[in-house]
Amino acid sequence: MSLDFEITHRCEKSNARVGRVTTPHGTFDTPAFMPVGTRGTVKGILPPQVARTGAQILLNNTYHLMLRPGAELIQSLGGVHRFMGWDGPILTDSGGYQAYSMADINAIDDDGVSFRSIVDGSMIRLTPERAIEIQNQLGADIIMAFDDCPPSADPELATTNQARLRHAAARDAKRGAYDHDARLDLALDRTARWLDRCVRAHQRDDQALFGIVQGGTDLERRTRSVEQVCQGDLPGYAIGGVAVGEEHEQIHRVVEHTSSLMPEDRPRYLMGVGYERDLVAAVLAGCDMFDCVLPTRNGRNANAFTLTGQIRLRNARFRDDSAPIDADCDCPACNPKANAWATPDAQPISRAYLRHLFMSEEMLGPILVSLHNLRHFQRLMSDLRTTIVDGGWGGFASRWPVAGGGVPSTLIRVPSDDKP
Amino acid sequence: MSLDFEITHRCEKSNARVGRVTTPHGTFDTPAFMPVGTRGTVKGILPPQVARTGAQILLNNTYHLMLRPGAELIQSLGGVHRFMGWDGPILTDSGGYQAYSMADINAIDDDGVSFRSIVDGSMIRLTPERAIEIQNQLGADIIMAFDDCPPSADPELATTNQARLRHAAARDAKRGAYDHDARLDLALDRTARWLDRCVRAHQRDDQALFGIVQGGTDLERRTRSVEQVCQGDLPGYAIGGVAVGEEHEQIHRVVEHTSSLMPEDRPRYLMGVGYERDLVAAVLAGCDMFDCVLPTRNGRNANAFTLTGQIRLRNARFRDDSAPIDADCDCPACNPKANAWATPDAQPISRAYLRHLFMSEEMLGPILVSLHNLRHFQRLMSDLRTTIVDGGWGGFASRWPVAGGGVPSTLIRVPSDDKP
Repeated sequence: MSLDFEITHRCEKSNARVGRVTTPHGTFDTPAFMPVGTRGTVKGILPPQVARTGAQILLNNTYHLMLRPGAELIQSLGGVHRFMGWDGPILTDSGGYQAYSMADINAIDDDGVSFRSIVDGSMIRLTPERAIEIQNQLGADIIMAFDDCPPSADPELATTNQARLRHAAARDAKRGAYDHDARLDLALDRTARWLDRCVRAHQRDDQALFGIVQGGTDLERRTRSVEQVCQGDLPGYAIGGVAVGEEHEQIHRVVEHTSSLMPEDRPRYLMGVGYERDLVAAVLAGCDMFDCVLPTRNGRNANAFTLTGQIRLRNARFRDDSAPIDADCDCPACNPKANAWATPDAQPISRAYLRHLFMSEEMLGPILVSLHNLRHFQRLMSDLRTTIVDGGWGGFASRWPVAGGGVPSTLIRVPSDDKP
Repeated sequence: MSLDFEITHRCEKSNARVGRVTTPHGTFDTPAFMPVGTRGTVKGILPPQVARTGAQILLNNTYHLMLRPGAELIQSLGGVHRFMGWDGPILTDSGGYQAYSMADINAIDDDGVSFRSIVDGSMIRLTPERAIEIQNQLGADIIMAFDDCPPSADPELATTNQARLRHAAARDAKRGAYDHDARLDLALDRTARWLDRCVRAHQRDDQALFGIVQGGTDLERRTRSVEQVCQGDLPGYAIGGVAVGEEHEQIHRVVEHTSSLMPEDRPRYLMGVGYERDLVAAVLAGCDMFDCVLPTRNGRNANAFTLTGQIRLRNARFRDDSAPIDADCDCPACNPKANAWATPDAQPISRAYLRHLFMSEEMLGPILVSLHNLRHFQRLMSDLRTTIVDGGWGGFASRWPVAGGGVPSTLIRVPSDDKP
């Protein structure tokens, strides 16, 4: 098998577990948070810096890399690890999500999707076979099945492109030609058929193919999707279509329901999530892997994550604030001494300096706050792994006020119940 | 004295020397190249990364920092070292050069210069006293005198703002009110008077004030300026007004003439230079300190320095080029293994990947090529320091084809003359 998953600890109070995934490019501890390196780079951060935040696996977007510089080129240069200079584990998505949410979709049929490239306007065809071929060329350790992503039933949750699709659907509905429930059912069945095609098309035994469970916020459809997707013997399974705009409680409900039905002995990957409380709730529900652009996207926009919530570093109140973002953090901004590559006398970088960098549009602002945010999420995962072992959820919730909402009150007892 | 300069070796074949400058924030070896951290940051590069390129001293621009975030704020936050997180030596310029070359100049008189802020349009007044007060507030180890920078006599060499000044001068000339030679003479005498005012205004004995020799490309004016500026007992002296567009030969002529007249026992700082061959010629003429934006500015624009000249990484011929920028370089891009913070298996980053980053407008492109270029200039200085000691200028010229033009043929003999 291309991937080994060992569960080393199980939480006595929840479905959470600590584990270790072994890939051809090394191991990563779970629960794991994967920084997003969309175009083969975590924006502004060198691979060794990414590793120093504690990240052990990265995500790259197939959609972006297939358009530029092209999967064939990356293959000819030795694959995506060599290309971007990251020799640890890498996961690629299938390109489907971006094709549906970002591209100018031309046609969706039972065979695949056609859309225009956002780079040069050329017509691109993605099918299950082509999505796997491209991911075989890129060469990531974990690759994802190509699925059908129908527009959300809730217009508030739809992306611009999904809104366009919905608009067309609504027009068809007026003519009696569109039935949203029927479209969702079609998507589920099509996703299952496409998964079979992905499995047959997959050529490399050094890459682990994960299936993706869909079904939106409808628990019955989630159940049906698990039955369809998880019936094979794939090395891992993902929960897709979550955190596209729902409330926290709805995310938690769907994840708890779906995770509990998925194979216990395979990594469960919750795609695109998310905020701290959602990660915590998903870990408690038994999810093992996560990815999200939040740390880097928000970091580029001067939003720094702290234990009590995000702070906006462009705010005038930070003009003369000599404190670091988070005095307890050991990232290169908050505590340079913690880094082997800093001088012994290095002092914390002040919010005032970070604000100055953003006001002056200096690259170092996005770099430093991205590094801080990436470390913030890795500290969260590290503390989660510790807490799963020692069961101290009360202590966890008080250490992470921003994430406490993800811990059910039944798990939070008086601090004396926690191990010291 | 706020600064100690020890000459440890003298070249037997030229006026070049190797030395060590000691400041309150540590020492740096000369000849030294100072990366430019305009707004309190070397663009896109963390201070520990700057240090890893070999740089031991940085330059910050007073003009930019006084406008934003303001010198008082930086002082209140503990000074510019603490502000930007660089605990090694720092030099600030006086702000004069930027005021003359970038600002919307409102008035120049015997007392100082008035101009509009490029940040918020407010009217700013710089005098010798104010320029020193601001530099006292910033707290760099080496600060520069405030001088009068007249427009260049050669329109081709003038900046946009200098062109505006020239236009006004030409208009005055038509009315018989402007005499360019008289303006240059006035600038020299004014610079000398302003230096006296700078010396009297300077309040901190932990900062070394350097005087600046001006005089353009006219050797007689350079001689007069040296006599005026270097008559005191300042800890160091700079050559200003060079490399504003002249040919290499003219730069070399002016630098050789001026350097030879300056005090032998003080560091000689050639401001704003420059290309490799100009640095080499200036080192051979006895200059000790340099600064230039070339490595970072060109790096941001995808131009990488190599031993044989610059390469433009956006060029299509690098599309599938698996080679690093320079296989002999030990920067984080060319040889990540040479860096303590890289993994042992780290491979060189290809030109193809760098091109992909620039084509995708990814921050990591400017970051990596800036790091490479900064290392390129530090390697050059390191090799110069070695060559001054061993006298192997023939070997130096063959190791650095791009800089060989700065070594006179009289110094280049057959390789067997060089020490191995």
